[in-house]
Amino acid sequence: MKLATYKDGSRDGQLVVVSRDLATAHYATGIATRLQQVLDDWSFLSSQLQDLYDELNAGRARHAFPFDPAQCMAPLPRAYQWADGSAYLNHVELVRKARNAEVPQSFYEDPLMYQGGSDDFIGPCDDVVVPSEDFGIDFEAEIAVVTGDIPMGCTPEQALEGIRLIMIANDVSLRNLIPAELAKGFGFFQSKPATAFGPVAVTLDELGDAWDHGRLNLVLQSTWNGRKVGMCDAGPEMTFHFGQLIAHIGKTRNIRAGSIVGSGTVSNKGVERDGRMEWPKGYSCIAEKRCIETIQDGAPKTGFMKYGDTIRIEMKNRAGQSIFGAIDQKIAPPGPPIATV
Amino acid sequence: MKLATYKDGSRDGQLVVVSRDLATAHYATGIATRLQQVLDDWSFLSSQLQDLYDELNAGRARHAFPFDPAQCMAPLPRAYQWADGSAYLNHVELVRKARNAEVPQSFYEDPLMYQGGSDDFIGPCDDVVVPSEDFGIDFEAEIAVVTGDIPMGCTPEQALEGIRLIMIANDVSLRNLIPAELAKGFGFFQSKPATAFGPVAVTLDELGDAWDHGRLNLVLQSTWNGRKVGMCDAGPEMTFHFGQLIAHIGKTRNIRAGSIVGSGTVSNKGVERDGRMEWPKGYSCIAEKRCIETIQDGAPKTGFMKYGDTIRIEMKNRAGQSIFGAIDQKIAPPGPPIATV
Repeated sequence: MKLATYKDGSRDGQLVVVSRDLATAHYATGIATRLQQVLDDWSFLSSQLQDLYDELNAGRARHAFPFDPAQCMAPLPRAYQWADGSAYLNHVELVRKARNAEVPQSFYEDPLMYQGGSDDFIGPCDDVVVPSEDFGIDFEAEIAVVTGDIPMGCTPEQALEGIRLIMIANDVSLRNLIPAELAKGFGFFQSKPATAFGPVAVTLDELGDAWDHGRLNLVLQSTWNGRKVGMCDAGPEMTFHFGQLIAHIGKTRNIRAGSIVGSGTVSNKGVERDGRMEWPKGYSCIAEKRCIETIQDGAPKTGFMKYGDTIRIEMKNRAGQSIFGAIDQKIAPPGPPIATV
Repeated sequence: MKLATYKDGSRDGQLVVVSRDLATAHYATGIATRLQQVLDDWSFLSSQLQDLYDELNAGRARHAFPFDPAQCMAPLPRAYQWADGSAYLNHVELVRKARNAEVPQSFYEDPLMYQGGSDDFIGPCDDVVVPSEDFGIDFEAEIAVVTGDIPMGCTPEQALEGIRLIMIANDVSLRNLIPAELAKGFGFFQSKPATAFGPVAVTLDELGDAWDHGRLNLVLQSTWNGRKVGMCDAGPEMTFHFGQLIAHIGKTRNIRAGSIVGSGTVSNKGVERDGRMEWPKGYSCIAEKRCIETIQDGAPKTGFMKYGDTIRIEMKNRAGQSIFGAIDQKIAPPGPPIATV
């Protein structure tokens, strides 16, 4: 089934069930008002939502209305955990190669992951508000899963059983803040502002056999200022699958319902043509394009995003239908300074 | 006022109001059931809780019962944000000195902070469950505040206005996992398992003039296996006050109600006596003691915590009364492996 959260002025919004073709929606009011509530009590509530979803798809739901992604908050407008991996090692290899550094062997055995802020996600069509263009504004097109309760010490296989929903994400990154921040040793913080998620979170059965044991074998599209810059395969080159990412979290702690776990920037290896490397599938973040330029020509030439730039991120199934709806955002400056808290 | 969350088998527990002397408590049922609910609607609900608190302190609350810290979850059993600073630069100086490294000048102008997991906090008397003693189990005695909504771009002064509650915390750390984790560059993750918080969260008016513009001028006591190892002044040596820590978060994002912001290990400078440095106020984490030993004698001699070890963390006001109740925990191994998720 497909679930979304409609804006209603409240912090958590209103849960809606969305039809498979994303054409219509129906409030889930009689079942649950918030998505976290469903994740807290999944086995009881999800079957009721599934019944409503079936009615909606059959055109029999009584109060269906046209679905509008612009009315959506993030499916979870705030969450108790947002742990983002960097599971496509090709991305790490390019970043390292651009600064003439090696990828440590341990990176192929032990996932990279950072803890992100989760108190204030933004909706799929909300502006990305950044205080300064000088921060090096970048998008990162990713896949993310939402988990149920998974106890400490889970294996990757057990972790896969705990996945409830899957989403797409724009893990906005402020590249020019990263070097100084990582040099301090405590990881990303100011360089990772509010993350955006696609309009709709879907259960794994919506993916059919494209969901392959923790990897999603479909193409994630990124369109920057109307130009398609990424058509990246999300599946085979994901070095660590979602079960492995979740088990990494679970090594020393329990993972509680509603935790969101991200893949990191989807990234594909280049191919050699006439003695020169090419990346025909493009890129899922500008930083990667700049690394490629640095490797090939000694310096980056693509700049980061400016106010007014747009980014659209979407994934279609093999029949060409949008699965999650599109993230479709504009970069914007903040409003006037605040007077009081 | 003083607020706590009683275990009731649910994820968020039951909100209780606790008397100033921590002797009695009263369910807040008619006003709010969960602390997050109060933080989401502070101006409307906090005054009603204050009325109940006044009745309870006057001995007039009709269904008061003896307060038992062992029945407490963390005041917020799960939260949308846990951002922990390292605001006592003396701690950083000792860590660096022990490995013959300098503290960069920027550390005195720009706070260190990491994003912690917030989906599964533990209560003040819950066991600290760690998969292996080899992980280097350590406590960290800290102070933490809970915020209301604070918009991006807030000043430290505005941030101070957004503080709603204050707590004590045990930011459990797995020291032997830290070097490899920080070497990966993405910050702490597995090395920071579930954090524990003191039984009671209090409003700032409970602190009187001990609350001084974002710093708390009182002593945080740490007792390890029944031996008092820390009597650390939390106030004057806090390099960055809570308003500065919150404003650091707010540089690139909004901070939403219920965010928890920590001070980092409370730490005091040593004093010279007869040509040798001493630390008469002790330590708020074992790692700091080991750094001192390394600086003085070339190697650490104090080991980390073992299964069965206990840690008690408490703060008293100038009249000698416990403000938050005590964190009182035992280190324990996990139960048997899980069969299914």
